[in-house]
Amino acid sequence: MSKVMRFSREFKSVDTVVDVGNVKIGGKFFAIAAGPCAIENQDQYFQTAKLVKKAGANLIRGSVFKPRSSPYSFQGLGREGLKLIKDLGEELDIPTITEVMDPRDIKVTANHVDVIQIGARNMQNFDLLKEASKSDIPIILKRGLSATVDEWLNAAEYLMVEGNENIILCERGIRTFSTQTRNTLDLSVIPLLKMRTHLPIIVDPSHATGNRDLIIPVSKAAIASNADGILVEVHNNPDLAMCDGAQSLPPEMFADLIENIKPILEIEKKVITGTTMTLDEVRRRINYVDEDIIDLIANRLNLVPALVEFKKKNSLPVYQPDREKEITEKYVRLAAVNDVNPTLIRKVFNLIISEMRLLQAQEME
Amino acid sequence: MSKVMRFSREFKSVDTVVDVGNVKIGGKFFAIAAGPCAIENQDQYFQTAKLVKKAGANLIRGSVFKPRSSPYSFQGLGREGLKLIKDLGEELDIPTITEVMDPRDIKVTANHVDVIQIGARNMQNFDLLKEASKSDIPIILKRGLSATVDEWLNAAEYLMVEGNENIILCERGIRTFSTQTRNTLDLSVIPLLKMRTHLPIIVDPSHATGNRDLIIPVSKAAIASNADGILVEVHNNPDLAMCDGAQSLPPEMFADLIENIKPILEIEKKVITGTTMTLDEVRRRINYVDEDIIDLIANRLNLVPALVEFKKKNSLPVYQPDREKEITEKYVRLAAVNDVNPTLIRKVFNLIISEMRLLQAQEME
Amino acid sequence: MSKVMRFSREFKSVDTVVDVGNVKIGGKFFAIAAGPCAIENQDQYFQTAKLVKKAGANLIRGSVFKPRSSPYSFQGLGREGLKLIKDLGEELDIPTITEVMDPRDIKVTANHVDVIQIGARNMQNFDLLKEASKSDIPIILKRGLSATVDEWLNAAEYLMVEGNENIILCERGIRTFSTQTRNTLDLSVIPLLKMRTHLPIIVDPSHATGNRDLIIPVSKAAIASNADGILVEVHNNPDLAMCDGAQSLPPEMFADLIENIKPILEIEKKVITGTTMTLDEVRRRINYVDEDIIDLIANRLNLVPALVEFKKKNSLPVYQPDREKEITEKYVRLAAVNDVNPTLIRKVFNLIISEMRLLQAQEME
Amino acid sequence: MSKVMRFSREFKSVDTVVDVGNVKIGGKFFAIAAGPCAIENQDQYFQTAKLVKKAGANLIRGSVFKPRSSPYSFQGLGREGLKLIKDLGEELDIPTITEVMDPRDIKVTANHVDVIQIGARNMQNFDLLKEASKSDIPIILKRGLSATVDEWLNAAEYLMVEGNENIILCERGIRTFSTQTRNTLDLSVIPLLKMRTHLPIIVDPSHATGNRDLIIPVSKAAIASNADGILVEVHNNPDLAMCDGAQSLPPEMFADLIENIKPILEIEKKVITGTTMTLDEVRRRINYVDEDIIDLIANRLNLVPALVEFKKKNSLPVYQPDREKEITEKYVRLAAVNDVNPTLIRKVFNLIISEMRLLQAQEME
Repeated sequence: MSKVMRFSREFKSVDTVVDVGNVKIGGKFFAIAAGPCAIENQDQYFQTAKLVKKAGANLIRGSVFKPRSSPYSFQGLGREGLKLIKDLGEELDIPTITEVMDPRDIKVTANHVDVIQIGARNMQNFDLLKEASKSDIPIILKRGLSATVDEWLNAAEYLMVEGNENIILCERGIRTFSTQTRNTLDLSVIPLLKMRTHLPIIVDPSHATGNRDLIIPVSKAAIASNADGILVEVHNNPDLAMCDGAQSLPPEMFADLIENIKPILEIEKKVITGTTMTLDEVRRRINYVDEDIIDLIANRLNLVPALVEFKKKNSLPVYQPDREKEITEKYVRLAAVNDVNPTLIRKVFNLIISEMRLLQAQEME
Repeated sequence: MSKVMRFSREFKSVDTVVDVGNVKIGGKFFAIAAGPCAIENQDQYFQTAKLVKKAGANLIRGSVFKPRSSPYSFQGLGREGLKLIKDLGEELDIPTITEVMDPRDIKVTANHVDVIQIGARNMQNFDLLKEASKSDIPIILKRGLSATVDEWLNAAEYLMVEGNENIILCERGIRTFSTQTRNTLDLSVIPLLKMRTHLPIIVDPSHATGNRDLIIPVSKAAIASNADGILVEVHNNPDLAMCDGAQSLPPEMFADLIENIKPILEIEKKVITGTTMTLDEVRRRINYVDEDIIDLIANRLNLVPALVEFKKKNSLPVYQPDREKEITEKYVRLAAVNDVNPTLIRKVFNLIISEMRLLQAQEME
Repeated sequence: MSKVMRFSREFKSVDTVVDVGNVKIGGKFFAIAAGPCAIENQDQYFQTAKLVKKAGANLIRGSVFKPRSSPYSFQGLGREGLKLIKDLGEELDIPTITEVMDPRDIKVTANHVDVIQIGARNMQNFDLLKEASKSDIPIILKRGLSATVDEWLNAAEYLMVEGNENIILCERGIRTFSTQTRNTLDLSVIPLLKMRTHLPIIVDPSHATGNRDLIIPVSKAAIASNADGILVEVHNNPDLAMCDGAQSLPPEMFADLIENIKPILEIEKKVITGTTMTLDEVRRRINYVDEDIIDLIANRLNLVPALVEFKKKNSLPVYQPDREKEITEKYVRLAAVNDVNPTLIRKVFNLIISEMRLLQAQEME
Repeated sequence: MSKVMRFSREFKSVDTVVDVGNVKIGGKFFAIAAGPCAIENQDQYFQTAKLVKKAGANLIRGSVFKPRSSPYSFQGLGREGLKLIKDLGEELDIPTITEVMDPRDIKVTANHVDVIQIGARNMQNFDLLKEASKSDIPIILKRGLSATVDEWLNAAEYLMVEGNENIILCERGIRTFSTQTRNTLDLSVIPLLKMRTHLPIIVDPSHATGNRDLIIPVSKAAIASNADGILVEVHNNPDLAMCDGAQSLPPEMFADLIENIKPILEIEKKVITGTTMTLDEVRRRINYVDEDIIDLIANRLNLVPALVEFKKKNSLPVYQPDREKEITEKYVRLAAVNDVNPTLIRKVFNLIISEMRLLQAQEME
């Protein structure tokens, strides 16, 4: 394939960060999506959503269109259920996710929820992908049960072909000879994908394992392998769940999960947006940002030798007051636009620029 | 699952025979569906179809909606192509097959072709299945790449739930670790399915192997394992094919395939309908029918002991002229309806019934 | 790999025929190996062997070293059992097969049985392969549960590296996600292997399916796909079998299997050696040989144009009595060595040679 | 299976800790085994071993018996190489690991190395397992390429049947349809196994991925999923490696790996033994031990209610000076045996016991 694919690092080198309301996914932003497999009724859905939000989820999942192996199993509330999702999103002020299976349901669903999910069975339902690509709503694309990495990325390309970049990949286990777990979670694929694509990748430990006792260690492993989020089934009363009860977490176990993943998220410097932070979390977040500022300043100073070489070749002076002024003024305007005190920015850049000047002078000798 | 599934032998014990025009599939009727992977243009499609019909195919396959891994590959002629299929079906007087992927295309497609195919990637595209189930057109349901037998049969149930019984299963290889062939053909599944379902099962050796050199032996094996048909990719010029060239047979190799499978079909007593028969084939067919007639007569006579026991218990006479007359008259009328000489039927049943009477009398003693 | 591998068609283009006593395997010779999974005691082994021999098996299988998943399952009679095998082979005058797992058992086993089997779990037990390669006893090499074709052929190469060519490959199903059958039989691999190797390939439908009701159709399919034999588990009383009862055939079902495969063997022109033939089978075999004789004579006559061209170029006469005499005398001597009436051979070759002469003369003009 | 298996938590509830020299594996003790795939010569082996030891490995791996797909690939130094391993172990004072494939090599290998490895291809080489079970040397048992969890655990049972408990399981990826990585690492199996077995489980990220760029994230994920160690291929010059070069880490990347896994090990409270610790690590270890001491004291105090209930029922006094004295003296003796200052132990237990007495008195009221 000579064409540069939109999913590829060649097309876009930096990590895509998908914005869903006040929640960010990708780069340093970690998503915790939780909620019931199927939305059974208002009570069950709202109850569960409130509990997972309180425990730390920043996205609510829940399906009204259910892909079921048997035609005689509960097929979901259908379009009727979409209003419930919209209501919940507004009441709890939290973004919502739901699965779509029929191209005719894309538009109406996009009007009621914040993120559309395309399930494993539909990863290569190309007409669904084409219809979804016409929207610019964020889309979670689950890996097919027996999809290769190339097939998966090509399915993402179907979604991106019209310009939508808000695509989130979701590893949910593949089908193998091993039936000890419901599927075989392929975590090596996370760092592998990170080399090939700028898109965020989340992990669904519930479908991957089918066993609630494995969700915590597997979620931790997902984060350690560099995943950008988890998608977890939680039910306010798993024993009464109309589907996937055995793999759904009860709310208290979900709270436990959050406690258990926090230290790993900290090591990986992943940040959860859209939730109220503790003082510690705020301080940590400040810390990450500071580190990034320092990194970027260092990057800037490291450009001195190249600058000097160029100026020498072209007999330019180290001190170019016009250029310095021009840059600083540009940043001051940018600051104003971004609601940052322009004086602060002016001072910071004066410091940086004079340091650069000094270093250049030393390098010149 | 306590519900009796429509696909099951419990629901219907005898083999379903699907009628498509003058072609029958299932039971003793073997289908040979052939044609190009994609319909590229009228010339390629008509050329290939004529050649495969002449060689012995009784159904013509060819896709206008193409599921392709990459969005940048040829996606098929789309709805425009449907007219080509209708024209071909009429011109060659042969039933046609085409794949549908989008529920919105079911109706229009059903108006142009004789059989709809649901592909491996869409086996669990439940909205497509539901839409298709509203039609009563014959449907080929391919096995998903990683579908279990239960998932496959349940997908068939989705199609049957509204009453359509014209469902044909198609084994096309599953995805395994072995990449020496494109997929791993699972022939053991044929006799296994035969125990569980009355639906016909055909085999697609082209997608299963991805290698034209394997099509002949694999097709023979499919028949020997009790398949009800084969679905083969043929292209009038495989080297120029826009897709699946390596697995497409050139027409002469397809003719070779037909020659090679004939002896196995004969052993399995499978009959190909809708094609002109040689004298030998006619005689063989006569033979099969005769054997069946004899079988059925034997079955009838074998009921004598049960009859006698019942009559003894209930003190009924062996000879019941009214009952005999009633039966015979019913058959005579049935004969008239079916355009069979009533006198012939009367004579045959007089013979059978008097033999039954004789046997009963002997048994009574 | 630049080295020409011993298993390859490049190394040896014609089919290898393995001789085991008066039984031949490979080329046109089909093997039917049957017997119990484990040899439990003399009675069960001899009983079963007699029944399968009578039904048409030409090799007896039965293990004394049993690979069992659990250390607490019956592990086989061990070396003690080898004497039973030797006794049976002598008493029934039929070649025997048994599995070896430990390199230290190769020698002693080779002294008691006719064919050694290396099981699926040991396909890459390289020290076992190396030890076995030092022997020249025929070896059945089963495919590993997850072995690729290249790994399998390389394992065969380990066996051939010291010169042993009596290697028989055995496809017995691979491990996939599908658990409806015990393993997934990969029949496409048979014609694929036939292109790459001259070694005979047999099929084990018992381990492949794990279900006795599938053995007959699957065996037929194996033959239709060009297999050189089948290896079937039969037990004189499957309900009491110490292992693999569910997949073992009772003797009467084995007899049924033989009846069912005979017509397919006939189509494939496969011959079973080492068993008493019916008049029909003798006549069919005569027929095959006649066809081969005719083929070879045709091949000879087809060389005329090349001969003529050569003679023209080199100004040689058509009639070269010395050369003709020399050839004929050589064949006459060969006939004597092979216990064929030399006069017959002389007459046959006089006829052929004079025909050649005539054709050359015509071609010359 | 009604028999209680030796590998099971029913047989032994607490984690097995395997001792190899001064290195511990299992429970809180994490193993870092590293070294070349094959030992090619003294230089390459010693060089690599020194570098990985310095970086933080506490076990050295390296094979002299190599399982190779082709008989024409380098098969390892064989028995000659065992002396190199012994020399290295002594010179560097570090435990060594090597693979054995032939039952005849078990004894001699056990005399030269500290840990024997049984490779994936030999997981069900039962005669090798039986021979190994006679030894009491620690054994790493790799999971077979297509082994189920039950088959794997049963293979471990073969090793334990004679009483050896020093068995370490090693997940190294299974064979699936996905070929993007060499195998598919099954990390969910780690927490699953932890529920069923007390044996330590380590992970081989090198064979699992076949790609050195994935080793670091995958190793982190392994630890987060609760693995007890990693087994990594390192080569002093991977480009010149005689096998597995693409998956071998160069020494500096291995040092990087160690730095990257340390924070996760800290979260998981895993300790690496047998290496020189930094002050920080010593303090952390002290911390862990302290936490455990506190835990155990809390456990002891929590027994008060049960004690009180018992004493009440049996009308026993809270203060039982004889019993208290007896216990204390026993511990003092135990302290002496373990080279701990008896006075310290006496004081500690006096404190604990008097606290217990106090709590009991309160509870009594």
